[in-house]
Parts: sequence; C-alpha cells; structure tokens
Amino acid sequence: MVASEIRALFAVAARPEVVSLAGGMPYVSALPLDAVGQMTGDLIARNGAEVLQYGSAQGDPVLREKICEVMSLEGIQASADDVIVTVGAQQALDLITRIFVDPGDVVLAEAPSYVGALGTFASYQADVVHVPLDEGGLIPSALSETLERLQREGRRVKFLYTVPTFQNPAGVTLTQARRAQILEICARYDVLIIEDNPYGLLGFDGEPMRALRADDADRVIYLGSFSKTIASGLRVGWALAPHAVRAKLVLAAESAVLCQSSFTQLAVREYLTTQPWREQIKGFCELYRERRDAMLESLAALMPEGCTWTNPAGGFFVWLTLPEGLDSKAMAPRAIAQRVAYVPGTGFYADGTGHRHMRISYCYPEPHRIREGVRRLAGVIEAELQLRDTFGGTGGYPTLGVDTPGPDTV
Amino acid sequence: MVASEIRALFAVAARPEVVSLAGGMPYVSALPLDAVGQMTGDLIARNGAEVLQYGSAQGDPVLREKICEVMSLEGIQASADDVIVTVGAQQALDLITRIFVDPGDVVLAEAPSYVGALGTFASYQADVVHVPLDEGGLIPSALSETLERLQREGRRVKFLYTVPTFQNPAGVTLTQARRAQILEICARYDVLIIEDNPYGLLGFDGEPMRALRADDADRVIYLGSFSKTIASGLRVGWALAPHAVRAKLVLAAESAVLCQSSFTQLAVREYLTTQPWREQIKGFCELYRERRDAMLESLAALMPEGCTWTNPAGGFFVWLTLPEGLDSKAMAPRAIAQRVAYVPGTGFYADGTGHRHMRISYCYPEPHRIREGVRRLAGVIEAELQLRDTFGGTGGYPTLGVDTPGPDTV
Repeated sequence: MVASEIRALFAVAARPEVVSLAGGMPYVSALPLDAVGQMTGDLIARNGAEVLQYGSAQGDPVLREKICEVMSLEGIQASADDVIVTVGAQQALDLITRIFVDPGDVVLAEAPSYVGALGTFASYQADVVHVPLDEGGLIPSALSETLERLQREGRRVKFLYTVPTFQNPAGVTLTQARRAQILEICARYDVLIIEDNPYGLLGFDGEPMRALRADDADRVIYLGSFSKTIASGLRVGWALAPHAVRAKLVLAAESAVLCQSSFTQLAVREYLTTQPWREQIKGFCELYRERRDAMLESLAALMPEGCTWTNPAGGFFVWLTLPEGLDSKAMAPRAIAQRVAYVPGTGFYADGTGHRHMRISYCYPEPHRIREGVRRLAGVIEAELQLRDTFGGTGGYPTLGVDTPGPDTV
Repeated sequence: MVASEIRALFAVAARPEVVSLAGGMPYVSALPLDAVGQMTGDLIARNGAEVLQYGSAQGDPVLREKICEVMSLEGIQASADDVIVTVGAQQALDLITRIFVDPGDVVLAEAPSYVGALGTFASYQADVVHVPLDEGGLIPSALSETLERLQREGRRVKFLYTVPTFQNPAGVTLTQARRAQILEICARYDVLIIEDNPYGLLGFDGEPMRALRADDADRVIYLGSFSKTIASGLRVGWALAPHAVRAKLVLAAESAVLCQSSFTQLAVREYLTTQPWREQIKGFCELYRERRDAMLESLAALMPEGCTWTNPAGGFFVWLTLPEGLDSKAMAPRAIAQRVAYVPGTGFYADGTGHRHMRISYCYPEPHRIREGVRRLAGVIEAELQLRDTFGGTGGYPTLGVDTPGPDTV
C-alpha cells in the first residue's frame, strides 16, 4: 500500500475557499439534531447498562429486525437471522473479500467502480476485471462476454461486485430489465453477486428500485448502510447473506473487531423506533434533488462542447467525461488553484485507465456553491482545451492506479 | 473456522439462575448514566454536524491527544501523531497481524494467552508458540530459550504478544525487574513486542505499573482500550506504534472499515474533557477490589485441597488450577448443571493443552453472587474428585483447541 495522491489533494481541497465537488459526505446537518440528541441522551440514561456493554458479534437482534423492515422497501423478504451488522458496509466488504478471495482470484466490478471496494480488493490481492456500464448500468452482454472469456482462460471468478442503484461514482442505475439479465447470466456462470446499495432509498422519482437480492436470495449478498440515510458518523452498515455465508461472516467479524458498538447500534435502533425516519429520508431526497438540479443546470449552461455527463436519478454523484486529449488527474492541481475540487476518474479503475473522467458530487455543498463550483470547473476545462489546441494534448502523465479509500471518496 | 463449543456453553450460562464467573464484561452500571446521557445528548445537539459525519481513518486528533494523556499515567511519552484509534484494541490486533504475519510465521504468546488474540492469530494462520508464565508474569529465561530454539530451527518470529499487567486470563502481572529483561531479550533477538494493556489502570494497590512501551518506543506497539476504563459498548481502542507501522495501520484500517465512528470517538473525547474520569476509574478499582476479595476469600475457604489459584492485584480474572486428573473442559457441563459457569483453560492455549485450568472472573457479578458461585464451583470440583478417586480420572476428552473470541471471553 502506498500513500494516496488523492488524499494529499483532499487536504488542500478542505480549505474553505475551495468548492469541493469531491467528497461523498452526506449532509447530516439536515437531521433534527436537537431531537436526535434528546433521544440519545434519554437512551443512555434509561438503558445505559445495555448501550455501554459488549454485544454479540452478529449485532443487536432488534436492530436486525428493523433492518429487514428497511430492506422490505426494496422488495426484500429476509430473516433477521441472516443479517449481520458491520462497521459500515465497508467492513462487510472487507470480511466478504477475506472469506472468499485468495490472491490472484478474479473479482468483477463495474468500470468505473467504488474506490473503497477497489482498495479492499487490492489489499487481498484480487485481480479486478472491469465490466463496462452505460446510462442503464452494467451492460449484460459485456458481462457475459467477460465471463465467457475468463472461463476459456480457466480463471477463477469469485464474485461480481456491483452498485446497481445510483452508482458510485457514475450516478447511473441498472434498469429493471437488465437486473433480470444480470441475475440470469450470473446463475449461468455460477457467480456470486455482491450488491452494494447505500443509496437505494435516495431516489428522486417515485418508488425505490427493486433490489437484485429481492429476486435471488441464494446468489446475492446484499450490503446496506445507514451512512447516507441516517448518519455516516455512526458507522452502522450490514450484510444480508445466505445462511452459510452469514455464519462465516460472524466468525470473521469476531476475529476482526470482537463485536459492533452497542452504543451506535442502539442509537440507530432507537432512531428507527421513535423517529419519523421515512419522512426524514424523503427530506434528504428533496434536498439532494435540488442540489442535483443545480449541478445539472449549471453543467448544461456552462460546460464546453465535448464534455458529457450522466444524469443521476438519485444518490450523490455525476460522472463527467472530458473532451478527447484532456486528463482529469493532470488537471486536478490546476483546478485546486482555481478553487474547485473533484475526484479524478483514475481512482475508480483498477487498471490505470479513467483519465478522461471525473466524479463530481452534489451531496454536500449548498446549491449556490455547486453552481459556483461548476462555473470554476468549466473555466478550468476551457483553459485546458486552449492548452490542448495550442500544444496538442495535456496528457502523458503517469497513471494513478487504485487508491485506498478515504472518507472523502466514499 | 468452526463454531465454538464455548459459545454454546455461554448461551446456557446467560440464564439468570446461573452464576457466571465466565464473562469479562465490565460493570458499566457503575457509571453515572444520567450524567453520561446528558453529556452525549448535549454533544449531539451542539456539535451534531461533526459527531454524525465521517472522520479520518486515523481517528479524531483531539481524542488522540487525550489518549496520550491517559497513557502518560503509565510513563509513556508519545505524540498523538503516532496513535491510531481502532474498533476496540481487537481491531488493532487484527490489523497488526494482517500487516506482519504470513501463514506459518511464528507469534509468541504467554501460556495461557487472551483467547481473542489467539483467534486472530489463527485466522491469519500464524503458528503460535507459547511461553510459560508464573505469578511474576512471562518468564524471561523461558522466553530466551524459546527464541534460541526457534532461531536454531530457522523459524521466522514476527512478534511477542503479551498482556503484561493483570493478565487475561491468568490475572498475573509482569514484575518491574522482568520488564527490563523482556525488553533486553527481545532487543537481542530483534523481536517486536505487542503490549496489550486494557487493564493497566485497574490496579488495586498504589500507582499504575510502568508500561513496556515507556522504556522502548521503537520495539513496542502498545494497544490500549476504553472498554474497561469507560465502557465496552463504545468499541474505542487504540494502537501506539512506531511511525512507519502507524502509517501502515492507518491504510489497513481504511481498507477494513473506512474510518472509525465519530459518534463514539467524540463521546469519549467529551467524557475525558468534561467528566471526572480519573475519579471514576478509582471508583471502578474499588468496586473490582471488593469483588476480587470476595472471590479470593471464598476460594480460600471453600476450595478442595489440590486446587491452586493466582492472586490478582488488578484487572478482572483469577486463574484456577485443578488437582491432577481433573478436566475443566469435561467438567463444564456439570458445572452449568450446578448453576455456575467459567471458561475452561483450553481456550487460552493454541496447542490444545490447558485442561487442568480455568478462568474465573469477578468483574461482573456482585460479591454475594461471587461467593455463591465459588461455593457451587467448589461443590462441583468435590464431586469430580470423588469420581476421580472412584473411577480413576475424568479426562480423556477431546481437546478443544483455539476458540474464536466472543464478548463473554474478552
């Protein structure tokens, strides 16, 4: 593992004069902090002996029931016995990789994919093979071709890792029709699916998408998180897994952290029991939709010709593609100098590609800051285009490779 | 990994009619729950945007300063920059093992040693070699002989794992004189030391022992925890490590859990800033001393001849050795039937030995329950002795091997 260049960039990006379109931090200030404080204080005064004590490695049973209730919004029917509470979904991903992956095994992931997952896969020496996506999410024909090729090559594919809904970083969503196809292809090649779904309830239109797990309880391990729907500072996530896998995950979790924090688990349990959490999530959706609109409107108004971007229907992220010859990694320091930050696309690929892409997020800055950030970014890209047209290309920079995850790149 | 027999035992031991001398749970009800509740509620209402948000992978900087203040009580001079906050000290142990140990590498550990550490070492396929201890802690001559032998055999020793103060499970403490010897021997053989010290501030006589880390900043990685001095339900521990190791630990922590909970970290920071924590720890010490006394008095009054036990000057545990021919593992179900539970010694050895030992803890039950528990246990041992004298031995049971850790066996 080497120190991350992106991390150094973020240290600069944290300056108040910089508009950061880089972070994936939820806007937790929108929570009713007085009510949450009151609730938590009462919980400790009333039930401190449980809140402050060790719990079981699988997680609080009542919270696991509540988690099943939350997942039912995405069509999932599950037993609390098949749920394990984890230190964010990140820990679930780490434990799953620990259990399944031997060095050199293949893990399939979207191109681009979540940087924190790529970091975990790299730490277990998995060989990540990317499968392309488009506005409709992972492309089924590309998945089956990749599996066919890997099968011919005698490679051992351990699982497909996918963020099907409001994807990080691309902001796209796997269509309903493709979901059935992806399940069918993975069944055909007998490949496990890790469905990572932290943003599923943060859609801007209508009802939540039906989860992959809702239609295949045997082949899909579902990862969920309260980091985006309640608060990221709690670090409460979960995995829903077939029974035999769940049992192994509990043993691995015991070895890794002994048990989860009762303090955070019971705070979430209390929040889900006593607070209007469905309405609160709707409030988050409205807030993020307004910010998404601010970003998309500004992009349409200001971006130079040749730039393209995705059109997210939920979640936190827009994926922007630069005109030919531009390099988002090389451009990043110049953008910081113009007081705007983003995440270069290279971090989201395990194969050193992604230079023409960047992730820009609308979750944290307020709308007027988003507009200002896009304005600055458009200026930076304009300047790069002039450089390109004058000197012929701004690229030729070394590839970045996979970065280990950091809170800013969640 | 296989399901633990001990865990099944604990499910039964949790029944209210059973006196459990098995668990290592601190008596958190002794905390001022109203004050802690008020403090936490105010913290969220006032500072929710930080408390509920992602933090850095290394942990809150102010909390790390406070941790240095806590460690100074044991003679440690350290920079907050060399501290990483972890999900209990268990996570620090997991990350350290992940970084240093390849399958087949040797890890040295006391005989007996903490069950949770043995579980972690096993999960990374370390080869645990035990070094005996006595009432004065780890025996220096045994350590140097073991290292000499391993060197001759060409084995690669990655580190010595030790709980020098109020050891879990043996309740013994490494003498001051031996501390210097252990450091000298490890320097001679160039072996790293993992000093696990969750109980160091819970002594019953005088000032805290000087930590090994206080006298060797380069060779010792120190693990600390608030699980026993504040509350186990927080899961806030830490590692203090030489700079290069600390940097690797932060990257490994990012990969494993992204970052620690701000919610629990800032609660600890607030507690250490606003509450009389030194007095509260003194209160814990008095409470546990009273319980230790109740246990030692009952043992002296009631245990059959041939039983011996350690005399802890702090911490949670007494280590009891049965007369020849008795088997604590085989006896456990009969003890449960008599409504008393303990942890059989076999769980604390990686080599399948330990049948004549057991760990009995005095941290959680109230004194009258401890006395009743020891009375029942003495009765069970008496019955076993009669069986032994009639039939000649109650042993011959299969060895248990290493158990993965559970909250009850902390």
